[in-house]
Amino acid sequence: MAEDFIFEETVKIYDTDAQAIVHYAGYYRFFTDALEAFAYERIGMMFPRANENVWFVVVESNAKYHKSARVGDKLTVHLSSNIVSDKAIRFDFKIMRGSDFICEGFITQVTIDKNTWKAVPIPKEIADKLV
Amino acid sequence: MAEDFIFEETVKIYDTDAQAIVHYAGYYRFFTDALEAFAYERIGMMFPRANENVWFVVVESNAKYHKSARVGDKLTVHLSSNIVSDKAIRFDFKIMRGSDFICEGFITQVTIDKNTWKAVPIPKEIADKLV
Amino acid sequence: MAEDFIFEETVKIYDTDAQAIVHYAGYYRFFTDALEAFAYERIGMMFPRANENVWFVVVESNAKYHKSARVGDKLTVHLSSNIVSDKAIRFDFKIMRGSDFICEGFITQVTIDKNTWKAVPIPKEIADKLV
Amino acid sequence: MAEDFIFEETVKIYDTDAQAIVHYAGYYRFFTDALEAFAYERIGMMFPRANENVWFVVVESNAKYHKSARVGDKLTVHLSSNIVSDKAIRFDFKIMRGSDFICEGFITQVTIDKNTWKAVPIPKEIADKLV
Repeated sequence: MAEDFIFEETVKIYDTDAQAIVHYAGYYRFFTDALEAFAYERIGMMFPRANENVWFVVVESNAKYHKSARVGDKLTVHLSSNIVSDKAIRFDFKIMRGSDFICEGFITQVTIDKNTWKAVPIPKEIADKLV
Repeated sequence: MAEDFIFEETVKIYDTDAQAIVHYAGYYRFFTDALEAFAYERIGMMFPRANENVWFVVVESNAKYHKSARVGDKLTVHLSSNIVSDKAIRFDFKIMRGSDFICEGFITQVTIDKNTWKAVPIPKEIADKLV
Repeated sequence: MAEDFIFEETVKIYDTDAQAIVHYAGYYRFFTDALEAFAYERIGMMFPRANENVWFVVVESNAKYHKSARVGDKLTVHLSSNIVSDKAIRFDFKIMRGSDFICEGFITQVTIDKNTWKAVPIPKEIADKLV
Repeated sequence: MAEDFIFEETVKIYDTDAQAIVHYAGYYRFFTDALEAFAYERIGMMFPRANENVWFVVVESNAKYHKSARVGDKLTVHLSSNIVSDKAIRFDFKIMRGSDFICEGFITQVTIDKNTWKAVPIPKEIADKLV
């Protein structure tokens, strides 16, 4: 398991809805942003492209909402990654606002050949950086 | 358990991303659209407002992606609802494109007092229509 | 100039923001939905694909906001189209809520060869249906 | 006229659509992000709240698209502001990718009393920082 990656996010007006809180699907933007930063900084890849031929695609997403975040809130997203098969990585997220536990969830991604759209093993140069 | 509710959707260009498929978080728009139509047609409520004082808020969301949908695809969203506690309803979704099983998932919602932001029982006039 | 095309839309929770009104960029979703329906019903094309080789791409967008729309509002989108050059069409929109004039704007689209990404004339079978 | 404000942005997968470029309405996210950062850093306000009683609301938005941006692109957003009346500010944006001129546009905002929803003068403490 890779060490936790930390990403800072500010809630934008477009993340919120008429309940004056972040729209439930908006948290997936925060997950994606953290994942994109993690992939760029830790692996050197431009998410969701693993390499010339291999893409990451999402096979499952989940979020549990504990407290509500509001426009202007400064959030800290904690990301950890686990290789769950030779073709799949699960990324777990926890979102905090200071000591308030706002949201947790995960995204499971599979590596595919972008031409055949079939699952392929995670490229070794990526897997090596996640263990 | 309420009978299945069926909702038709067309994939729009803004639902897709550069992988030329629906962005994973975009399926939650389809879930929300089906839920909004269900609430309006079956219950007569304007989602997410249960009544003057009570709102629905999302406490969990989940989606599993089986096949990819693309711009212009005609999708059928099947919704079923289950009251899981006196304050929570789980809405389950299955998205089909003809006989292709595209995606399944759920959204769990809790009823709250919009002033105190505390969980309150599901209003009886709504619960009665879901059993 | 083609006759006005009318499209009905309901404001969804995800169209709104913490000001409890439709987010300014959300109106472009309504424009796009009306345009997609117009293209499908009047021209028989699956927007933004004009044909196998030709795509529509947006070169300008504009919206003026007169009144605020809120979740659950029933909106009527009026679309008219004008061929402004042999390679460009401007689509004008007016959004009403009953007799309230909510928003007006336009999207200008150019037809391109999707392989070379160069502007090409609007396909005749499409232009013929717009005059 | 205030001096140009510079904001850096990376194109995310969710900004793009099936044409493999940034969706036309996605550029408004970049405008909003630059505006939010400008308001926070230059004025000390948490956009779109001017103060306890005054909000900014958008009355017009516009974007002209010159070149296409793609996932992973590093963009530079240039923002300048002009007070166009005692109740309205126009924010102009230019988006560059290195020396490529990608997009330009503007957002005009009016200050309102959030209780009456009527236009009110721009608060002096904000206007003073924009001249």
